[in-house]
Amino acid sequence: MKRKLTLKLIAKELGVSISTVSKALRDSPEISEETREKIKAYAKLYNYKPNNIALSLKNRRTNTIGVIIPQIVHHFFTTVISGIEQEARDRNYNVIICLSNNGFDKEVENMELLANGSTDGFILSISKETMLKEDYHHLNEVIEQGMPVVMFDRVVEGISCDRVLIDDKAGAKKGVSHMIRTGCRKIGIITSEDYISVGRLRTEGYLDALDDYGIAANDNLILKLDNIDDLTEESKKRIEDFVTKNDLDGIFTVNEFFAVHATRVLTKLGKRIPEDVSIVCFTDGQLSENMIPSLTAVSQHGEEMGRKAASILIEKLEREDSETAPYDTAYIDTSLVERESTRKLNR
Amino acid sequence: MKRKLTLKLIAKELGVSISTVSKALRDSPEISEETREKIKAYAKLYNYKPNNIALSLKNRRTNTIGVIIPQIVHHFFTTVISGIEQEARDRNYNVIICLSNNGFDKEVENMELLANGSTDGFILSISKETMLKEDYHHLNEVIEQGMPVVMFDRVVEGISCDRVLIDDKAGAKKGVSHMIRTGCRKIGIITSEDYISVGRLRTEGYLDALDDYGIAANDNLILKLDNIDDLTEESKKRIEDFVTKNDLDGIFTVNEFFAVHATRVLTKLGKRIPEDVSIVCFTDGQLSENMIPSLTAVSQHGEEMGRKAASILIEKLEREDSETAPYDTAYIDTSLVERESTRKLNR
Repeated sequence: MKRKLTLKLIAKELGVSISTVSKALRDSPEISEETREKIKAYAKLYNYKPNNIALSLKNRRTNTIGVIIPQIVHHFFTTVISGIEQEARDRNYNVIICLSNNGFDKEVENMELLANGSTDGFILSISKETMLKEDYHHLNEVIEQGMPVVMFDRVVEGISCDRVLIDDKAGAKKGVSHMIRTGCRKIGIITSEDYISVGRLRTEGYLDALDDYGIAANDNLILKLDNIDDLTEESKKRIEDFVTKNDLDGIFTVNEFFAVHATRVLTKLGKRIPEDVSIVCFTDGQLSENMIPSLTAVSQHGEEMGRKAASILIEKLEREDSETAPYDTAYIDTSLVERESTRKLNR
Repeated sequence: MKRKLTLKLIAKELGVSISTVSKALRDSPEISEETREKIKAYAKLYNYKPNNIALSLKNRRTNTIGVIIPQIVHHFFTTVISGIEQEARDRNYNVIICLSNNGFDKEVENMELLANGSTDGFILSISKETMLKEDYHHLNEVIEQGMPVVMFDRVVEGISCDRVLIDDKAGAKKGVSHMIRTGCRKIGIITSEDYISVGRLRTEGYLDALDDYGIAANDNLILKLDNIDDLTEESKKRIEDFVTKNDLDGIFTVNEFFAVHATRVLTKLGKRIPEDVSIVCFTDGQLSENMIPSLTAVSQHGEEMGRKAASILIEKLEREDSETAPYDTAYIDTSLVERESTRKLNR
C-alpha cells in the first residue's frame, strides 16, 4: 500500500523540522529560498497537496468539529470535552479529538491531519511547547483556508479567532478573598511560572485579593512550579518544603493536585484543616469533591466552557458571512464551591 | 454548502433508526425487503456510498488509528489513551478519538465517520447500550471492509477481532485474598449488575477468593449497582445503606468511586480504616492514590493495555496477510498496590 505523504514524512526525508516544511509550503519568508524551493519540489514530485483543505471545503461540509487538547489525563479537559460533545450532539455535529501531548510538532501534525477534509473547524487549547515557541503558523494557516478556530483555556493573542476563557483572575480573587473573610491572614499560593497564562492570571488574582484587604504581599509565600499538568516528584518536594517552612494559615493552589499534596503534608505535620489551615484550590474536580476533608474549590465550569466553545464555532460555521464576522472573547464565570477545607463565614 | 449525506441524515429523513439504514445498505435479511429497497433507492438518489471504505483503503494508507471509547470522564480510559498515544507515536501513527457516550447510535455514527477514509483500523471499548442490544453489525461491517479492529476492556464474543483484556477475575481474587490474609472475614463487594462483563468477572473473582479460604458466600454482602461509570445519587444511597446495615470488616469495590463513598460512610460511622474495616478497590487511579487514607488498589495498568492494543493493531496493519491472520486475546496482568486502607501482612 502507498503511504500518504504527510508533513512529517517530508520533514523526515529532508532532515528538517515539521514547521519548516509547513512554512516552506506556504512560502513563508522565515525559510530561506533554497530550502523552500527544495521542499516545494519534493512535495510536487510526490504529489503532496497542501491546499486540499480549501478544496474539500468547497465540495462538502463534514459536520464534524476537530478538538485538539494538550493532554487528556486531566479532569478539567475531560469536562470541557463533555460539554463540546453535548452541544455538538444537540446540533447534529460530530466531534473528533486529538492530543498534542503538550508538544508543538504533534499539534502541527494533528491540525494537518484533521484539516485534511475530516473537519469543518477547530476547538483547541494550545500546547505548552507552542506557548514557549510562540509559533502559531499552523493556526494561521487553517484560519486562512477558511476553517474557523475557537481557542479555550490556554489561548494566545494575535490570532484571528474566537476565544473562550475562564475568568482566572476573578476566580482566584474569589477563592483568596473567601479565605481572608473567614480569618486567614498568612496565605500562601502554589502556582505556576508566569509563562503559563492561567498560572500568571491566578497569581494576579491572589495578589489583588490581598491588596483589597490591605495585606502586604510576600514573595516567600508564592511558590511557582514548572509543571501544572501533574504532580512530579520535584513538585512534591518543593510543596513539602514550602508548606513546612512557612507557618501558613491558608493555602491557595492553582490546581487540585497541589492542594491534595499540601493537605497530605499538613496532615503529617499534625495541622487540622480548616481549624489551623484553610485550603482552597482552583478546579472543581473529582479530587476536591471526594477528598476527606473535601476541598473548597473555584469551579471552572468546564462543561459550560465546552458548550460555549462548540456553540460559537457552530454559529460561525453556519453563518454566510463567517469570514468577515468579528472575533469575540467569551468569559465563563467561576463560582466558589464551599466544602470542608475552609471555615464557615460568620454572616 | 452541500451537506454530506450520512447514515444519520438518511435515518432522520426516512424515519427509521441508524442501524436500520446501516443494515439495509448491506442487504441484511433482518430488514424487510421493502424497507431495504426504499433506503437503497434514497442512498442512490443522493449518491451515498456505503463502500467508500474499501475504496479509500485501496488508494492510500492514512497511518491513523481510530479510537472509540464509551466516555472520557473516567481516569482508566484516559490512561489507556495515553498508552495508545505513546505506542502510536513511537511507530509513526496518528490517533483520532471519538466518544460514544455509552450510546449505540453514537457508536455506529463514529465508526462511519472514522471508517470514511480517516483511519486504517480501530481500537474500541464498546458502549453499554451496544452490550445490551447485542447488535454488532457496525463492527462486522468495518472488519469485512478490511479494517482490523482491536477491542479492549469491554469486549464481546463472536466478532473477528483481536482483544486486549484485563484479567478481571484474577485481579479481584488478588484483592480479596489480600484482605482475607490480613484478617478480614466478613467481606462485602460493591459491584455491577452481571450484564456488564467487568462487573460480573470481578464478582466471580471475589467468590473464588472466598471459596479458596473456605468462607461461605452470602448474597446479602453483594451489592450490584446499575451504573459503574460514575457515582449517582441513587448509588450513593444504596452504598450508604449497604455499609451501614452490614457489619463488614472488609469492602471490595469494582471501581474507585464506590470505594471513596464507602470510605466516607465508614468515617461518618466512626469506623477506623484499616483497623476496623479494610478497603480494596479495582482501578488504581488518582483517587486511590490521593485519598487520605490512600486506598489499596488492583492496578489495571491502563497504559500498558493501550500500548498493547495499539501494538497489536499496528502489527496487523503492517502484515501482508492480515486478512487471514488468526485472532488473539491478550491478557494484561493486574497487580496489587498496597496502601493505607489495608493492614500489613505478617510475613
